[in-house]
Amino acid sequence: MWIFLNDRFVPREQAVVSVFDHGFLYGDGVYETLRSYGRRVFMLRKHLARLERSASHIGLEPPIPEKEWPGLLQEALERNNLEDAYLRITVSRGEGEIGLDPTLCPRPTVVIVAKPLPQYPAHLFDRGVSLALVSVRRNLPSALSPQIKSLNFLNNILAKQEAERAGAFDAVMLNAHGFLTECTTSNLFFVRDGRLCTPSPEAGILEGITREIIMLLAGEQAIPVEQGLYTPDVLRSAQECFLTNTTMEVMPVREIDKSSVGSSLPGPITTSLRSLFRASLSRFLE
Amino acid sequence: MWIFLNDRFVPREQAVVSVFDHGFLYGDGVYETLRSYGRRVFMLRKHLARLERSASHIGLEPPIPEKEWPGLLQEALERNNLEDAYLRITVSRGEGEIGLDPTLCPRPTVVIVAKPLPQYPAHLFDRGVSLALVSVRRNLPSALSPQIKSLNFLNNILAKQEAERAGAFDAVMLNAHGFLTECTTSNLFFVRDGRLCTPSPEAGILEGITREIIMLLAGEQAIPVEQGLYTPDVLRSAQECFLTNTTMEVMPVREIDKSSVGSSLPGPITTSLRSLFRASLSRFLE
Repeated sequence: MWIFLNDRFVPREQAVVSVFDHGFLYGDGVYETLRSYGRRVFMLRKHLARLERSASHIGLEPPIPEKEWPGLLQEALERNNLEDAYLRITVSRGEGEIGLDPTLCPRPTVVIVAKPLPQYPAHLFDRGVSLALVSVRRNLPSALSPQIKSLNFLNNILAKQEAERAGAFDAVMLNAHGFLTECTTSNLFFVRDGRLCTPSPEAGILEGITREIIMLLAGEQAIPVEQGLYTPDVLRSAQECFLTNTTMEVMPVREIDKSSVGSSLPGPITTSLRSLFRASLSRFLE
Repeated sequence: MWIFLNDRFVPREQAVVSVFDHGFLYGDGVYETLRSYGRRVFMLRKHLARLERSASHIGLEPPIPEKEWPGLLQEALERNNLEDAYLRITVSRGEGEIGLDPTLCPRPTVVIVAKPLPQYPAHLFDRGVSLALVSVRRNLPSALSPQIKSLNFLNNILAKQEAERAGAFDAVMLNAHGFLTECTTSNLFFVRDGRLCTPSPEAGILEGITREIIMLLAGEQAIPVEQGLYTPDVLRSAQECFLTNTTMEVMPVREIDKSSVGSSLPGPITTSLRSLFRASLSRFLE
């Protein structure tokens, strides 16, 4: 496994950072998860733009010019002989004296990991996953905005742990006001009376790139799409529910807090959007 | 500089962690900052108990038995020829495959750094520091409790950056409901009509160990101590204000949002508690 570290590719065992890296000391950094289909990267420019945006929110300037990322990602795929791959770009504040001040770190750390795509078992797509509404609330946007894809992920980890204790695949998190936000690494969609609904950015979510494509494809199919502030009750009365992110694409949800969603099998809109997404992929590869 | 890493002391340049350490990927870990006075550690057991508590909150079991920490801290001081020192214990989830699930990491990473105590310039203690009330709110306790001293520090870093842009030494953060909480690495105290006031744990703060000692010492001096939910207006009308943490002990505050606190010189209660703290230190060294 070859990993890009700062300025060159190194073997996995040499892919290390100082214990004084502020990414390790404070989670001070940002990242992106990308996916390639036969070495073409899904929504590459949108992912890179979001990386820049996340970095800008925390006052971090990635040391790699934006135009050089595509070549580095390709090299990561080639050196690791990967076609369909998972890619993670991490940019941390870098090594520096202990202290919160980012100016203690002269140079950000850059890591690119490319690895075979983790495969979700087929039965999850066929039958759907289970969700639990957890007590852990999503980060307050005015404290640390969920729009920043940062290395501060304990909020989501705590939610995921609670979901696992409840025997669920993932957690649905509410915001401070009790409105639905998202799951720990995916966006949430549900269908009510033929309308496709998803929590709006105002609820405090990461605006997922797959989320955006699904809304686009649904619109093209004349499926009404609605973004809003929803209470858990609205979700509980949904006829269909699914999750989206780069690696799972469209994942049907079978049950929420042990109660079946609709007929408990992936519903017609979920199934058709999942097929459409896969059939339309070539439009979104770069 | 010798750093303890997992099971042995290594030179600084060998003190590295994998880019797959979940401390680096997700800020998944906890830490404690301690201080020694002539090789005796301030409130050692309280710090170690808080480390265990923070770890327990995120479902992490430090791989070092609690009784072994004191010896390791002493060895860190001795190997680095330090007397009055700053010590940081970090316990991260450890190296593991990419993914939020903590069970991906078989063994937590442990790091102990000991270094000369950073000295605050004397004029800060003589004249006091400036604070800015910032727009960044303190983390929601139900999202990621400020009582967990975790490696997720971006909330505080964003607040510190905002304070620096305002030309202030540090930031005062409010909670989601607009009540005072704490500064980015210290607890907040102020004096009103002879009463010593400090935001209560209910506001969402880290319950600082120096904070606790100051409340104890004030009580012994028959200074009335009050913990509560306070609005910024209450702070603005204070006659005195100071900060506490392990490294600064008691730091007077000169101004808040460019307005003088009281006479703008450290007030009598601040000065007397600072002197008393230093005079009483031997009671709290272990």
